Amino acid sequence: MTFAPLQNDTFLRACHRLATPHTPVWLMRQAGRYLPEYRETRARAGSFMGLATNVDYATEVTLQPLERYALDAAILFSDILTVPDAMGLGLSFALGEGPRFAKPVRDEAAVSALRVPDMDELRYVFDAVTSIRRALNGRVPLIGFSGSPWTLACYMVEGAGSDDYRLVKTMLYSRPDLMHRMLEVNADAVAAYLNAQIEAGAQAVMIFDSWGGVLADGAFQSFSLAYTARVLRQLKREHEGQAIPRIVFTKGGGLWLAEIGELDCEALGLDWTVNLGRARSLVGGHKALQGNLDPNVLFAQPAQIEAQAVQVLDSFGAPHTGPGTGPSHIFNLGHGISQHTPPDHVKLLVDAVHAHSRRLRNSQALD
Amino acid sequence: MTFAPLQNDTFLRACHRLATPHTPVWLMRQAGRYLPEYRETRARAGSFMGLATNVDYATEVTLQPLERYALDAAILFSDILTVPDAMGLGLSFALGEGPRFAKPVRDEAAVSALRVPDMDELRYVFDAVTSIRRALNGRVPLIGFSGSPWTLACYMVEGAGSDDYRLVKTMLYSRPDLMHRMLEVNADAVAAYLNAQIEAGAQAVMIFDSWGGVLADGAFQSFSLAYTARVLRQLKREHEGQAIPRIVFTKGGGLWLAEIGELDCEALGLDWTVNLGRARSLVGGHKALQGNLDPNVLFAQPAQIEAQAVQVLDSFGAPHTGPGTGPSHIFNLGHGISQHTPPDHVKLLVDAVHAHSRRLRNSQALD
Repeated sequence: MTFAPLQNDTFLRACHRLATPHTPVWLMRQAGRYLPEYRETRARAGSFMGLATNVDYATEVTLQPLERYALDAAILFSDILTVPDAMGLGLSFALGEGPRFAKPVRDEAAVSALRVPDMDELRYVFDAVTSIRRALNGRVPLIGFSGSPWTLACYMVEGAGSDDYRLVKTMLYSRPDLMHRMLEVNADAVAAYLNAQIEAGAQAVMIFDSWGGVLADGAFQSFSLAYTARVLRQLKREHEGQAIPRIVFTKGGGLWLAEIGELDCEALGLDWTVNLGRARSLVGGHKALQGNLDPNVLFAQPAQIEAQAVQVLDSFGAPHTGPGTGPSHIFNLGHGISQHTPPDHVKLLVDAVHAHSRRLRNSQALD
Repeated sequence: MTFAPLQNDTFLRACHRLATPHTPVWLMRQAGRYLPEYRETRARAGSFMGLATNVDYATEVTLQPLERYALDAAILFSDILTVPDAMGLGLSFALGEGPRFAKPVRDEAAVSALRVPDMDELRYVFDAVTSIRRALNGRVPLIGFSGSPWTLACYMVEGAGSDDYRLVKTMLYSRPDLMHRMLEVNADAVAAYLNAQIEAGAQAVMIFDSWGGVLADGAFQSFSLAYTARVLRQLKREHEGQAIPRIVFTKGGGLWLAEIGELDCEALGLDWTVNLGRARSLVGGHKALQGNLDPNVLFAQPAQIEAQAVQVLDSFGAPHTGPGTGPSHIFNLGHGISQHTPPDHVKLLVDAVHAHSRRLRNSQALD
């Protein structure tokens, strides 16, 4: 496969801790329900999975936010639960509700039956990656992604979203052997899944440990971090001569940042509870940092959105501008964008990040 | 008012960082739905507020867990939302759902109308405190409590529980002046409320900042911590010659522990994400620490519950046994006990904490 050459490499450079003319910005869930054009495509597709499994629809919605905003990266439109769905758990999305599995994994027999799925079951995802990469035509890089082994396990055991994680934690504490077995299968499946996305054209990959932060100290290290590390050990470092940066985002993982910083990956996602300056002191010497505006800021007025974006950029501190590697920041939200976000406010945010981060670099050049 | 002399002062001594023969233990929401005798009283009361506003029922359910378990403290049975209810917001609890306010506070007019309520509106709470203190008859100390100013504001603006805090954060970011005004009123109301509980017989007070952890770094300090400090500044330090320890619990606040540790209070509650040994190094020199078992551990089997309790005690490290003050631990869960908890498992936990914490002290004495 050959694709058009990349025109905007700020995101990939920032992942590798190289200097960039501005701070690159993209937004988790940037293709989604807050955009009227997304809702229109979603209505045509009939269902969320109808949208996610159709290559043309997935390509269309992935590119929608790039038409509106000067984003520095695209992210595959898909769901974190495609892998357990391919394991035969029967994923569905009822309208207005979250995901649900018809066959949750709650006993020894169900865990024993788990296998790394045949990647052919996920062909629709890899086809979408290739199609999106072609449609991007080199405009910005394409990020592939997966849920982390622990985050997938949460949904696989609970069968749906949860507010107390009672079932999955009951298994963790009462049958740690089963939980470890499930996490091994998940880790190997996630690694195969991300490698196939890389082969299909993903130029960076991100692991979403959305529920790592609900674990107790000690349990996080054994049941989440260790399996994220197992995924990373199996990932391709490069594809067709291009290095593939790997980003790990642990929502609510700020307390464990030093330990997460030991992972073999290029960048760490941070939520809004983390002070970027402190994170930079702790792990910025060897990891790019991605984040971390509270998505609720986008409900404020323009002047306040700009002020909060500036505050996030300033909290990271002076950008690295020289040759070689140095502290590096990729602007993002600290969690997915809300479906209630006014689309105009997103434009304002993206432009404010570019303008202020260029100012920061210019004022440094004048020093 | 005179009450019977206290027979078990381990909890109060631990709050003041004095040595105790075992690690005192109590459990957040220890009087509640997981107990069949509670559900029986609740059925007689007809509704949650019917239970909370009736002095006899409130006394009965507060004492129920003490009949089953060797707990070292009792906590007033009430709700954190009594204060906004007394402000006229109209609290109700639909069966099987969380709390709901009939008149949420969402605009300038509603904020301007907020006042510190007449404490006579909350007389039922103070009467319950006195009644419980009498019924305890000196067995263990009684803890009074309130929600923090920010946590109350979350419910007052959202009108109910929330999973994204969109409305309250929209007000925070778009009208910080209104949010500060609301938090001032809340802080002064909480201070008056806790002082009245102390006068009625509460021997310690706890502020629950249940939703402090949802705020961004920076916003937490300005909109939650500053107003918890405002409450603490107004609290009575002692009553009738007895020092009244003050405990602050910020769920999800582990990242800000050093800053929370600067509060003028005796003890800090910690959730399960925090490593007790690290917390002890950071703030254990001037604060007692309370926590922090994941409540979901109580769904495991006996041997595993014991092992996890031991792990929490061991993570805090060697108990202070000498004269004077020193590092001090009060065992608790990291959040309220689940309504699905098997009552037998709670007995096992409480006894394991007492047994292992005595062993720790004995092995030190032998060194």
